[in-house]
Amino acid sequence: MAQVKKRLDDIAKPLCGLGALENLLIRIAGLTGTKKIGCDPAAVLVFCADHGVVAEGVTQTSSQVTAQMAAAMAAGKSCVCQMATREGVRVIPLDVGMLTPVRGVESLAIRRGTGDLAREPAMTREEAVSMILTGMDLALRYREAGYRLLLSGEMGIGNTTPASAMAAVLLDRPVEEMTGPGAGLSREGVIHKQAVIHQAIALHRPDADDPLGVLAALGGLEIAAMTGLFLGGALYQIPVIMDGWISSVAALTAMRLSPRSVQAILPSHCSEEPGARAVIQALGLSPLITAGLHLGEGTGAICLVPLLRMALSVYENGSSFSDLQLVPYEPL
Amino acid sequence: MAQVKKRLDDIAKPLCGLGALENLLIRIAGLTGTKKIGCDPAAVLVFCADHGVVAEGVTQTSSQVTAQMAAAMAAGKSCVCQMATREGVRVIPLDVGMLTPVRGVESLAIRRGTGDLAREPAMTREEAVSMILTGMDLALRYREAGYRLLLSGEMGIGNTTPASAMAAVLLDRPVEEMTGPGAGLSREGVIHKQAVIHQAIALHRPDADDPLGVLAALGGLEIAAMTGLFLGGALYQIPVIMDGWISSVAALTAMRLSPRSVQAILPSHCSEEPGARAVIQALGLSPLITAGLHLGEGTGAICLVPLLRMALSVYENGSSFSDLQLVPYEPL
Repeated sequence: MAQVKKRLDDIAKPLCGLGALENLLIRIAGLTGTKKIGCDPAAVLVFCADHGVVAEGVTQTSSQVTAQMAAAMAAGKSCVCQMATREGVRVIPLDVGMLTPVRGVESLAIRRGTGDLAREPAMTREEAVSMILTGMDLALRYREAGYRLLLSGEMGIGNTTPASAMAAVLLDRPVEEMTGPGAGLSREGVIHKQAVIHQAIALHRPDADDPLGVLAALGGLEIAAMTGLFLGGALYQIPVIMDGWISSVAALTAMRLSPRSVQAILPSHCSEEPGARAVIQALGLSPLITAGLHLGEGTGAICLVPLLRMALSVYENGSSFSDLQLVPYEPL
Repeated sequence: MAQVKKRLDDIAKPLCGLGALENLLIRIAGLTGTKKIGCDPAAVLVFCADHGVVAEGVTQTSSQVTAQMAAAMAAGKSCVCQMATREGVRVIPLDVGMLTPVRGVESLAIRRGTGDLAREPAMTREEAVSMILTGMDLALRYREAGYRLLLSGEMGIGNTTPASAMAAVLLDRPVEEMTGPGAGLSREGVIHKQAVIHQAIALHRPDADDPLGVLAALGGLEIAAMTGLFLGGALYQIPVIMDGWISSVAALTAMRLSPRSVQAILPSHCSEEPGARAVIQALGLSPLITAGLHLGEGTGAICLVPLLRMALSVYENGSSFSDLQLVPYEPL
């Protein structure tokens, strides 16, 4: 990390002139243990799963859409695919618990959809552990396949509800501050969604000091798998870009299970959901992009990739003060 | 604009799921008058000029560095060059008033450096007008050369001082709120810089309702040329990405001269300088990237380019709800 910082400070520019991008390069070096920083090839893992809580009327669309979008993703037709093609990033949709399996989408599912968290636990603790291990294994698998950067994406109709419920419990903040319109709820819809979350919390009485219990009672299969991906990133030393609301709650869960996992997590954007900034702050991270994105699929995470690559170009090829026969800036 | 919005709403994603990026596409369509939106080829114009106020000790480095960095830019060796190469954006350094001409950098200068604004006007009104016209001409020149997107960059040792002085006057805000460390001043250095700006404002008593007078008394030759670039963007219907602190003050000057010029201005990042957010807000714009960048050269503006291109990929190639046989989201 010190070597990377020294190289960045030697480049002919104001000290830390690339701000947070320089810090990300330094953090990647710390995680991977080398000053030869790379972020290619990169892949966005899109964790697809369904949610029993959709039965409570917390979404505008039906659970069917999860499988339809996963199929579109496998065919290269969803929004993240257009963006990823432009950036040369591979899109890998993964079925971690959709109601309907989809041809062309690898299934790692141990159950088809969660329970309705307003009436029963979303999953058992054993199932939560199993999906976390699945996510950890994926970090290893793709690192061994040569990937140097992973992006956490998701697709799961209804998944802002479990994410909001988990965030409210884990941060001990009012449900109202953590709950927003998701993919397109009306004002009344949001109020109903908040009531459903209150009902779930009253039913399960989850303990914030037991993140696995919170995940099992209120979470989602893709949230569990993404939690594992972040933990696996730290364990297997491969950086993982955090996406938006759902992804940030998974990152928070990973941090609560193992604080050191944050070192593998790269922030990207701050979602439109009202609790997004609080969760990112709780992780001790700062989003670089705030553009009102709320699409999911890893589309916010992918926005960081070209910025990282540009910073890397400066790191690798930038002229130093001495190359240009300039007097370096003095640190303050 | 309505046609672009309709197309974006038809794509299988939450309504306005790409947030500010969708708004930028709609604005580009409005400016250029076509739904065939393009942002390539793109060029960053780096306006290089010197500042008499450097004599007051408001910088860590000397004016010489302006020419040295312009030469590095012409040789493809500065930071923005590394980033631009990665993104396929052309870097065009322009001498609009450096103390020392540089081989390989086209000169459009009408004087070599400004006067020391703490003791005399930075330039005459006629010189300010002349540089504004130069900037406007450049918008036309590069549009006619086939460019579809321009980025406003600058290099000029000392130029955060005139930018801060102009912002304080144009926004009628305390000098202290508008003045920061620039490329690397100490705390004492910033206090001295603020005193120099106070002295300049007391000397010239500029009138905020006379933006040309503010520019002439307190500005810089590159600030005048960038002001013209934004005005030219509106006049010749080519979008111009605003960069950081210096660029945003030029954009504010353009808006004060002609409010409609804002339609050509695309926000990119919010600089580390303390007044940056206030100036961007005064323009009625929101930055998409907040990453502590403070490098200049157009490096913040270039960060927007890949994001715009990704949004454009979705716009051009995204599958519609009907393509995927999905029910569209209902607008609220």
